Amino acid sequence: MSVTIAIIGAGSVGFTKKLVSDILCVPELRDAHIALTDINPQNLAMAERIVRRIVEANGLPTQVSAASDRRRALEGARYVINCSRIGGLEAYASDIQIPLKYGVDQCVGDTICAGGILYGQRNVPAILDFCHDIREVAEDGARLLNYANPMAINTWAAIDHGGVDTIGLCHGVQNGWRQIASALGVPREELDYICTGINHQTWYVDLRHNGRRIGRDELVAAFERHPVFSQQEKVRIDVLKRFGFYSTESNGHLSEYLPWYRKRPDEIGRWIDMSDWIHGETGGYLRYSTESRNWFETDFPAFLEEAGQRLDPARRTDEHCSHIIEALETGRTYRGHFNVKNRGIITNLPSDCIVESTGFVDRFGLNMVSNLTLPLGCAATCQASVDVQRMAVQAAVTGDVELLKLSVLHDPLVGAICSPEEVWQMVDEMLVAQAEWLPQYADAIPAARERLAKGTVPTRQWAGAARREVRSVEEVREATAARRTMGALGQRPGA
Amino acid sequence: MSVTIAIIGAGSVGFTKKLVSDILCVPELRDAHIALTDINPQNLAMAERIVRRIVEANGLPTQVSAASDRRRALEGARYVINCSRIGGLEAYASDIQIPLKYGVDQCVGDTICAGGILYGQRNVPAILDFCHDIREVAEDGARLLNYANPMAINTWAAIDHGGVDTIGLCHGVQNGWRQIASALGVPREELDYICTGINHQTWYVDLRHNGRRIGRDELVAAFERHPVFSQQEKVRIDVLKRFGFYSTESNGHLSEYLPWYRKRPDEIGRWIDMSDWIHGETGGYLRYSTESRNWFETDFPAFLEEAGQRLDPARRTDEHCSHIIEALETGRTYRGHFNVKNRGIITNLPSDCIVESTGFVDRFGLNMVSNLTLPLGCAATCQASVDVQRMAVQAAVTGDVELLKLSVLHDPLVGAICSPEEVWQMVDEMLVAQAEWLPQYADAIPAARERLAKGTVPTRQWAGAARREVRSVEEVREATAARRTMGALGQRPGA
Amino acid sequence: MSVTIAIIGAGSVGFTKKLVSDILCVPELRDAHIALTDINPQNLAMAERIVRRIVEANGLPTQVSAASDRRRALEGARYVINCSRIGGLEAYASDIQIPLKYGVDQCVGDTICAGGILYGQRNVPAILDFCHDIREVAEDGARLLNYANPMAINTWAAIDHGGVDTIGLCHGVQNGWRQIASALGVPREELDYICTGINHQTWYVDLRHNGRRIGRDELVAAFERHPVFSQQEKVRIDVLKRFGFYSTESNGHLSEYLPWYRKRPDEIGRWIDMSDWIHGETGGYLRYSTESRNWFETDFPAFLEEAGQRLDPARRTDEHCSHIIEALETGRTYRGHFNVKNRGIITNLPSDCIVESTGFVDRFGLNMVSNLTLPLGCAATCQASVDVQRMAVQAAVTGDVELLKLSVLHDPLVGAICSPEEVWQMVDEMLVAQAEWLPQYADAIPAARERLAKGTVPTRQWAGAARREVRSVEEVREATAARRTMGALGQRPGA
Amino acid sequence: MSVTIAIIGAGSVGFTKKLVSDILCVPELRDAHIALTDINPQNLAMAERIVRRIVEANGLPTQVSAASDRRRALEGARYVINCSRIGGLEAYASDIQIPLKYGVDQCVGDTICAGGILYGQRNVPAILDFCHDIREVAEDGARLLNYANPMAINTWAAIDHGGVDTIGLCHGVQNGWRQIASALGVPREELDYICTGINHQTWYVDLRHNGRRIGRDELVAAFERHPVFSQQEKVRIDVLKRFGFYSTESNGHLSEYLPWYRKRPDEIGRWIDMSDWIHGETGGYLRYSTESRNWFETDFPAFLEEAGQRLDPARRTDEHCSHIIEALETGRTYRGHFNVKNRGIITNLPSDCIVESTGFVDRFGLNMVSNLTLPLGCAATCQASVDVQRMAVQAAVTGDVELLKLSVLHDPLVGAICSPEEVWQMVDEMLVAQAEWLPQYADAIPAARERLAKGTVPTRQWAGAARREVRSVEEVREATAARRTMGALGQRPGA
Repeated sequence: MSVTIAIIGAGSVGFTKKLVSDILCVPELRDAHIALTDINPQNLAMAERIVRRIVEANGLPTQVSAASDRRRALEGARYVINCSRIGGLEAYASDIQIPLKYGVDQCVGDTICAGGILYGQRNVPAILDFCHDIREVAEDGARLLNYANPMAINTWAAIDHGGVDTIGLCHGVQNGWRQIASALGVPREELDYICTGINHQTWYVDLRHNGRRIGRDELVAAFERHPVFSQQEKVRIDVLKRFGFYSTESNGHLSEYLPWYRKRPDEIGRWIDMSDWIHGETGGYLRYSTESRNWFETDFPAFLEEAGQRLDPARRTDEHCSHIIEALETGRTYRGHFNVKNRGIITNLPSDCIVESTGFVDRFGLNMVSNLTLPLGCAATCQASVDVQRMAVQAAVTGDVELLKLSVLHDPLVGAICSPEEVWQMVDEMLVAQAEWLPQYADAIPAARERLAKGTVPTRQWAGAARREVRSVEEVREATAARRTMGALGQRPGA
Repeated sequence: MSVTIAIIGAGSVGFTKKLVSDILCVPELRDAHIALTDINPQNLAMAERIVRRIVEANGLPTQVSAASDRRRALEGARYVINCSRIGGLEAYASDIQIPLKYGVDQCVGDTICAGGILYGQRNVPAILDFCHDIREVAEDGARLLNYANPMAINTWAAIDHGGVDTIGLCHGVQNGWRQIASALGVPREELDYICTGINHQTWYVDLRHNGRRIGRDELVAAFERHPVFSQQEKVRIDVLKRFGFYSTESNGHLSEYLPWYRKRPDEIGRWIDMSDWIHGETGGYLRYSTESRNWFETDFPAFLEEAGQRLDPARRTDEHCSHIIEALETGRTYRGHFNVKNRGIITNLPSDCIVESTGFVDRFGLNMVSNLTLPLGCAATCQASVDVQRMAVQAAVTGDVELLKLSVLHDPLVGAICSPEEVWQMVDEMLVAQAEWLPQYADAIPAARERLAKGTVPTRQWAGAARREVRSVEEVREATAARRTMGALGQRPGA
Repeated sequence: MSVTIAIIGAGSVGFTKKLVSDILCVPELRDAHIALTDINPQNLAMAERIVRRIVEANGLPTQVSAASDRRRALEGARYVINCSRIGGLEAYASDIQIPLKYGVDQCVGDTICAGGILYGQRNVPAILDFCHDIREVAEDGARLLNYANPMAINTWAAIDHGGVDTIGLCHGVQNGWRQIASALGVPREELDYICTGINHQTWYVDLRHNGRRIGRDELVAAFERHPVFSQQEKVRIDVLKRFGFYSTESNGHLSEYLPWYRKRPDEIGRWIDMSDWIHGETGGYLRYSTESRNWFETDFPAFLEEAGQRLDPARRTDEHCSHIIEALETGRTYRGHFNVKNRGIITNLPSDCIVESTGFVDRFGLNMVSNLTLPLGCAATCQASVDVQRMAVQAAVTGDVELLKLSVLHDPLVGAICSPEEVWQMVDEMLVAQAEWLPQYADAIPAARERLAKGTVPTRQWAGAARREVRSVEEVREATAARRTMGALGQRPGA
Repeated sequence: MSVTIAIIGAGSVGFTKKLVSDILCVPELRDAHIALTDINPQNLAMAERIVRRIVEANGLPTQVSAASDRRRALEGARYVINCSRIGGLEAYASDIQIPLKYGVDQCVGDTICAGGILYGQRNVPAILDFCHDIREVAEDGARLLNYANPMAINTWAAIDHGGVDTIGLCHGVQNGWRQIASALGVPREELDYICTGINHQTWYVDLRHNGRRIGRDELVAAFERHPVFSQQEKVRIDVLKRFGFYSTESNGHLSEYLPWYRKRPDEIGRWIDMSDWIHGETGGYLRYSTESRNWFETDFPAFLEEAGQRLDPARRTDEHCSHIIEALETGRTYRGHFNVKNRGIITNLPSDCIVESTGFVDRFGLNMVSNLTLPLGCAATCQASVDVQRMAVQAAVTGDVELLKLSVLHDPLVGAICSPEEVWQMVDEMLVAQAEWLPQYADAIPAARERLAKGTVPTRQWAGAARREVRSVEEVREATAARRTMGALGQRPGA
């Protein structure tokens, strides 16, 4: 078969290891060519060593290559996996810090809200560059499997403006399913479901235990009596009660997409949980990512050793990527949840938006279940995000500062907190801080800088309502059982 | 020809006078039968006297009848005009007062926001009753011309659940057009425009002076240098600057549909103007309506006398009603802006919603301009209202309390101010207060009352950020030049 | 589990045996209740004996019942399978004979063309009766699995007017796939495909052998060098050459849906093959059905004996029915081709029509692959049938004789042969002949009879271009190897 | 104002005179620049003289220019009117003659059917050239007003592939309306109507005399008792009886779009009338056009003299062109019937096709009445043409010979007459004969020539079922009253 699978941003070492291990569990894919690329040569070298170790330890015919030159890595690729994080932690820090000055207290900030919208502005030009290269040097009909956030914005831009067949992939749906099964106390295999909506706001609209439908009340009861979930998932459970459906999204994430739970600083504490970054902590994912990066720099040898273990198909993860490639290459049907252009999949979301919904992959591609209708409340909430995303994509592609500001203005949480003037100044400040990664705004940034110099909107210096310090590597090591950390490091936001 | 035109809520005497005067300016409609009905016999009697006076003073062959029994009035009607206000000032007062306790400070509160949504709950059962009667006793194919607010909710319910061909009519578009012409200093006749969106959030997306396009900057400059508008229309001008398009809606109304201008009580004053109720005053329309009602009770004789004047076609108003009937009956084309089911009129609003947009009426009915696309920011703002309206309609038709609460929760201004718990309790309180007009919730209200008795959400006693006292008839008389009041009394909200 | 599966028209004994055998190969379905019904008590008794024999011979816990009273059979059913043939052979004979008088020479005549359209008129009232009973006495959400022709017309009526969740099932797609694999000389399992279009005009738009695409030229070559197919499938191969895609439909069937191959009697022989009824013989299926019926009356004992054999899951057929039920009841995904409402499945056929296309069945129902686009020629040909079907359904539901005639007039083959006057008289003649099964036309038939009495359009007495005599049971027995007959008898048209 | 209006194919002198006279009746258009172009310098010179004479005789400020170089004529044009006939009478003769050899007897053959489809192949490359020039040298946002047939094919190509805002214009709707008024014996002004469908198959779906609906029976009676129409319009009346609606199309034209009236040569005579070319004569329009051309060559002086008359606004014609320009330039609303992209105008025709339907023109452009639904029979007949047109456009743009043949194969009349082999050979023969005007098929024509040389399909030499000789100029002069000829010469097919 000998298909080439390229990974952009392969320097996300833990995630690359996970993806490659999964892929190499498929017999038909063992003679693939895994082509790694990353702009950070050190991380790329680490990733290459990990992948080579896996291949050698299992005696596989897999070909491995690594190239800082992206176009070389994409040559002849049939699948291109995007795991990049444009701007890295440096830009990301300003996604969190600047909105805080205007009262917007985000937990993750990589989807919508001020941080996610700006993250999208950094991503889109990069994604379009990837697409350009794919069209030029990859195999005809190559597919882009995008893992990078902001998922909807990136996938939307790639499909509409990149001209590449793109699928957005996240693991939030599987995570929520595992959690529901756990809350209900039933084996996962007995729990069938349809999950639909938009990335990070996907809803379990039909849940069946051995064919029997699980209703809202039964689910609320299960979560409320669960000792851990009842503490960690307060926003999700509150939403479940009021909307009638459980959301894929983690407590921390969900709280920042809605106007109701994080707009009053003194109430944020009521709704979140500080046991893990993902449950709502101010800038939680920024802290977690910083700790992880530091950890890698010191603990790589242990990680490399682990890569030398025998591949066990029984431990292949439910990360969609390897399953999609398997289905396309072998024709074995795979059912999963994917981010694609709506076009009638969800009848009550716009046709042009990116939805995350149920589909079947076979030899011929993705076959999405269509004509699903979201419950009205779920649809309204998704729609608010979609409108923000559409403006964010359009602004990112055209470099239209006013549209970018309208996008942020319409963000539900920002809109509940800020006045228009505040939004206008906040966006100017973010543009200036991130100018390095925003080529499309190059001409507009000087004016933003000037406006900012004359800005009169007062701002606030604070750490946010629920901030934790970044821990040292030692503290992380102590705090976390080694094995648990390993697992978590292979995981990306959206969990 | 002898067509029957029925008016429900004819006791809105000033408005009935205006409509009938307009209709009787059309030669082909002078032998019509005007059939008045109202649940208030006193107001109905006043309206009848006014209409008879017009007919007599002009020596017309028009037939006039008045009946408290609605079905009698609708018998054989080809056009049914709805001007009713379900619940009257009593229910309306609670639309304003109860949300205030939860921090929601409305100016009009009859479209969306907490007040408008509840007003819709009162209206929909009544509208469906009207439709039921129309289907049974009116002429086959009779049309309902609805003037009652909340426009979109009422029209949506009538079309989807009433089974009657319904057109929603407002004068906001004409008012805005006059204002723009005045700001620009050009004769109205030279100013062509397309206005599109949803009722009370319709946007002048194309403005031409003798064919030359008027851009944003020119319009902003015109409004900002205008001595009166620059003071009265601060929200509209701010929106014009940021969105790029002028909105039909009055300053006070617009401020309550958006999350940005009325959520912080201490800032409301910055954006509104107290020279007239419509520019943003807390409960402004409630005060105005109360004063108008009182005024009528004392000043009817003068009003009646005015009705004895000769009809002057040159003074026929641009209120759509008479023009639509004229076009349908004579085939003379009329261009106006109407509230109808979207179905492709605005490509980026949902197909099922009620839009207010440009159309041509001829012998065959309304011919709406289709395939218009709203600018992204305008669309996003309209969409937020549409989602609220859809839930409000569905709740009103089914009596689903949870959906009603989700509707209020998703209201942009409510969502920017309240927490979910506050919304849940506020809606319970409104349901209990307005139970008399909410037959569809009869079964659900006892539980609401119980929850309320145990309610723990704290509320606030205040008059709102910008309240004025209701003035006595004498005060109104003094304050207003007689002629100006006359004009205003014939005008309905949305101006 | 104990699901009730009802079979209407169970007296199609061979087909009932096949369906039940398939179903009972699924372990989870073995405790089902199989409820048989038929208007012919003798056939019903035969079917019951067969089914009971299967159950007993395999020692299964299956419950079996048989009832002439249809409502009793449908009580509590979750699945209702329709195998009925309304009007039986008697009415069917006139579907063939009367059009022949007007020059229309059909081979099967049960889909569109004059015969199929009239067959639809007989079926629709019956199908709506079935649906009525299902809504009243079957399990909530019961599904109708329709095997009865005319497939598209029946399914369309059931969905739009019967209010029952209906799936239309045919085996043409599988048969064609087997044939293609055979022509190519490859194992079926290695041949993946997407087949899409409308029933009996479904097109293999994507064919892959181990992932490699099979193009037109390769397929033409394979069929042309095949000693049998090259003789039997001349129309199909000619269409393949000109349209670029192979059609599911048998040679005989296909020739009667198109205006080009059967309109000149002297050329019909060039395109058909007389080795089997299905390759184009005049009235071929009528002869075959008559012979089969006669055969059953004498040879039932042998058939019954065969039913006493051990069920072998390896011999379970690829008839969709049992696989769909299995997928719905167990959640095991099944990929097949189903007749459903289009709604975006095929982008270039109307949204309201019934398409036959690829889908995946799981616990939640049918998940059809959407946004497929037919090649333009294939779409045009399907569209012509769809327009005929739409009029046929509408006429059947409303009893509108003129619309029925317009439906027949627009049939591609009829339109290529007849003048409007001929069509009008032909339809009158068919209405009169089949009045017994056409309750919806009861009021209109006297007028048709009158017109007919005065009819001036000349007709022709002939047997058609390629007619064979019905053979005696003995002749059939001799002509056919016993085992082959057995197989064939379990097969329905469309093969 | 000084708008530039360019006319391509201005050498259609009679039509150019009509258009320009109409335009110059509008006061606001009198200072326009009329820019004429034609590939025939002699005809262009004649047209220029005519136009200059009009301008001078009326003392207008109009600027007139004529240029063989098309790009020069289009420079700065806001409106471009296309009246060209690609291939002239020479190519047109083969549109009629070659199909005749295969039994296809056309009357006009310029819309669909074999002749119209090939005419489209000649037109599309030319139209795309025009569009290319318009995009490059005309005013930004210039509009193409297309009068050239085949209307739907040309307009479809211009919109989808030419990138120019295009409106297709025909006068068939007005002609039919005048005829209906005449049949009913009522003044036209009292007859309102909605006409919708596709060009040359538009249907009067709603007809009102002073508001009262005219039903089928009343209309049939009116036509049948009319001494002239009852003889000339037999196909139209037969279609009216069976379909329930009157078609815009002339008897001769209509008979060639349908499979029923012209497929049997011996019956053609029954349905047509030889009093004028338009009622069904074989090659009628070819004869008429030949006679007109000859006539012009001898009778130009008389025509020129007529151009010197005073313009009389009361004699301005109802040809749409001048009215559209007037509406766009002045904002005065105009109601007419236009050829545009469907996009929801007719709900039961495909979204991508070109429909001819009711619209209102104002300052902002065409405002088409949307959400019209054609009666099922009318829709089915239109749909058959649309499918042919879509393939014809796609073939014309891509030069795909097989698709072109599929287009001709699916033509209703061709399909009712020919076998696939005949169609294949006939198209090859037409391609070879018209190679000069078919640049897109340049590479494919040698192979067609080769196939043709080996062609085995027999053809027939005959004149058609109802052929008349081309008359000499003298004969025409005698036969026709001078004034009547004048009018007719300004008229184009489709009347």
